[in-house]
Amino acid sequence: MTEKLILHEYPPSGNCYKIRLTAALLGIPIERRFYDIMKGETRTPEFLAEVNANGRIPVLQIGDRFLPESNAACFYLAEGSALVPADAFERADMLRWMFWEQYNHEPNVATLRFWQGWVGIDNLTDAQRAMLPAKRAAGEAALALMDEHLATRAWFVGERLSLADIALYAYTHVAEEGGYRLSDYTAMAAWLDRVAAMPGFLPMDA
Amino acid sequence: MTEKLILHEYPPSGNCYKIRLTAALLGIPIERRFYDIMKGETRTPEFLAEVNANGRIPVLQIGDRFLPESNAACFYLAEGSALVPADAFERADMLRWMFWEQYNHEPNVATLRFWQGWVGIDNLTDAQRAMLPAKRAAGEAALALMDEHLATRAWFVGERLSLADIALYAYTHVAEEGGYRLSDYTAMAAWLDRVAAMPGFLPMDA
Repeated sequence: MTEKLILHEYPPSGNCYKIRLTAALLGIPIERRFYDIMKGETRTPEFLAEVNANGRIPVLQIGDRFLPESNAACFYLAEGSALVPADAFERADMLRWMFWEQYNHEPNVATLRFWQGWVGIDNLTDAQRAMLPAKRAAGEAALALMDEHLATRAWFVGERLSLADIALYAYTHVAEEGGYRLSDYTAMAAWLDRVAAMPGFLPMDA
Repeated sequence: MTEKLILHEYPPSGNCYKIRLTAALLGIPIERRFYDIMKGETRTPEFLAEVNANGRIPVLQIGDRFLPESNAACFYLAEGSALVPADAFERADMLRWMFWEQYNHEPNVATLRFWQGWVGIDNLTDAQRAMLPAKRAAGEAALALMDEHLATRAWFVGERLSLADIALYAYTHVAEEGGYRLSDYTAMAAWLDRVAAMPGFLPMDA
């Protein structure tokens, strides 16, 4: 990487953590710039015009170009490294788990963590409150599917850690902050330990 | 592609259409196998065990391996072709729009089309009904963001059609079936015409 990398982020966000963890495992230095999403700092006219028209973090800045979406940023950092499988099917299968993470896992596991730990259950709108049971059930189904997949293999794709594991680790390892019980999922719990034991591993709060 | 390709699908699904459109533009033959999601045909024990433990279509079968998630299947088919940019930043930026599609676009634009055209608004649960205004607003915001992006460029990434355009075309071009007004978005409407004019283009109902 010859261009300077800046991560526009909110540190407690699992989506931001994915990028820091990927960079740490690859030994890539990244400068960090902080925004408080609870104060609307990613919805200012300046942020929308210069960093991300979608008003969200993380955004990986590469020189003077901006790349939103956590999993796309991880792909940019890791393409060509051992974190992206060399086999074409496995590479697509890695992306499969990353798309699944954004569609089936994050909107349930991460959103309940955010509602419970940041917004506060008492402060939810009626519409959000009506969604709680379905999000709880969908999050439990996502964790159960991960546990079933990991019952017969050490990593999500192939025989080693890939971006699929990193993308899924980020919000799974803090799922209890959203009221999920990780001890219900034994194969997944062992996988969490395997990820955390990787050389170069970086904790979320580092 | 030396292995036989079978698309496990439900034809009106935009997610399934993405894969057929990608294959058509690349001239790749695909066999089709149909499931009626309205009759629960993707939730049978056989489907869950053999095709996709997540109980969803589309799934691209490659020989005896199964690849769920529409955008991952498109990536598998198109990697190395002109539909995936040769530049590393643009390749990641293409994935950025595909992740954005699954997180910000599909759960709003596609879900309202499904609720309005398949489930029926009168048959929604109370929890679904409570989500309608937020999903409508989020879908309109997604379409507005696309329109703004396309105001200054012909394609989502770089100077030519990529998988980002295909992923976003699938549900956008039928967004009126969910009550969205495409005529509100002039740059996006011109882009829809550009996609449909591509050599090898395949309509959704073909």
